[in-house]
Amino acid sequence: MIKDLVQRNRSYRRFDQSVRIQPSTLRELVDLTRLTPSGGNKQPIKYMLVTTEEICARVFPQLRWAAYLKDWDGPEEGERPAAYVIVLGDTTIARDFGVDPGIAMQTLLLGAAEQGYGGCMLGNILREELRTVLEIPSQFEILYVVALGKPVEKVVVEEVGADGDIKYWHDDQQIHHLPKRALSELIIAEK
Amino acid sequence: MIKDLVQRNRSYRRFDQSVRIQPSTLRELVDLTRLTPSGGNKQPIKYMLVTTEEICARVFPQLRWAAYLKDWDGPEEGERPAAYVIVLGDTTIARDFGVDPGIAMQTLLLGAAEQGYGGCMLGNILREELRTVLEIPSQFEILYVVALGKPVEKVVVEEVGADGDIKYWHDDQQIHHLPKRALSELIIAEK
Repeated sequence: MIKDLVQRNRSYRRFDQSVRIQPSTLRELVDLTRLTPSGGNKQPIKYMLVTTEEICARVFPQLRWAAYLKDWDGPEEGERPAAYVIVLGDTTIARDFGVDPGIAMQTLLLGAAEQGYGGCMLGNILREELRTVLEIPSQFEILYVVALGKPVEKVVVEEVGADGDIKYWHDDQQIHHLPKRALSELIIAEK
Repeated sequence: MIKDLVQRNRSYRRFDQSVRIQPSTLRELVDLTRLTPSGGNKQPIKYMLVTTEEICARVFPQLRWAAYLKDWDGPEEGERPAAYVIVLGDTTIARDFGVDPGIAMQTLLLGAAEQGYGGCMLGNILREELRTVLEIPSQFEILYVVALGKPVEKVVVEEVGADGDIKYWHDDQQIHHLPKRALSELIIAEK
C-alpha cells in the first residue's frame, strides 16, 4: 500500500552509520526515478552516487541540517548517512528543472523506505565546496542532496496546533516531533 | 512494490469520461500528500478538488495538452478527465514552493495508479481564466493541474534512440510512445 510507504517515509537525519548501502541499491533507486514524469519529457535530472566511507566523510561537512533545531548541528559520527545521491540538473538539456527534482527524490525515497532505508532531501548545501570535493563538471547544477541510511531516529507526526506553528522539534529523548496540517486545512474547496 | 506502481503511473491524457471519481477518492489522494516532505515543513501547498461534470467541463478549456503532439488538441468529448486536482501555492505561507509540488503530485498520482486511475500533471494552463472559472482567491498561486480519470490510453516506454530525441509521439493506432533515457545516461559517476 502506497499509504503505508508514504507514512514510513519520514525525513530521517540520524542513521546507523555502520549499515552501509551498496552501489547496486542506489542504482535500483535511481532506476525508479527513470520512469517518472518529467516536464516536456526532457529528463534533465542526473545523479552522482556516493557510497564509500571515504567520500561520504568528505560530503558530510558540505551539508547543513535541520534549520529549526538551533541546538543541533546535524548527526554525530556513528549516526551519519551511509550514502548520498547528488541530484544534478544537466544545463545542456534544460535551464529550469521545474517539478522534476521533487518527483524524482520522492520516488527514490519511497523506494528506499520499501527496502527499510530512509533519508532526507537537503537543499542547504555548500554548493561550490561540494562541487570541488566531488569534481562535478560545470555543466551540472547542484540541485539537492539526498542523504540515505538505516534510520535510528524516531519521528512522531502530530497535528499542527492552534498557534499554527509548523516547526519540528526534538524532545529530551531526541524524538523528532513533526507537525503536519490537517486535511481540512489543505483543501480549500470542492466543486 | 513501488516499482510496479511507478511503471503503471504513466502520464495519461485519454480517459473513459463516464467513469466518474468520487470526492472522497480525491480527498484520500490529497491526504497521501499531507504526510510528504515539505521544504522547511511549511506545507504551503493547498488544493481545490473538481469532480462534477459541470465544473470539469469549465476547467477543460483552460488546459493545454501534450505540446509535442502538433496534430492533437487534447482529449475529445468522452475521453476527457473525470476529475481535477488544482494545485495551489498559498502565498500567505511561502513565496517559493520549491520541490513541494513535484513531491505532492507524484505521490498523489502513485496513489491514483494503485486505485486503477491515472492522470497527468499539467503546467500549461490559462491561469487567469481558470482563476475566474473556479473563483480561486488571489492569495493562492495556481501552480499545476492534475487531470485524473480511468485511462483508456496505451503508453509504451522505449529507450531514447541514438539521435537523442526525447519527444513522445502517437502512432496511427493512437498508441503513445514515450522515450526514456537509459540508466547509464542518468548516473554520471559513482564514488
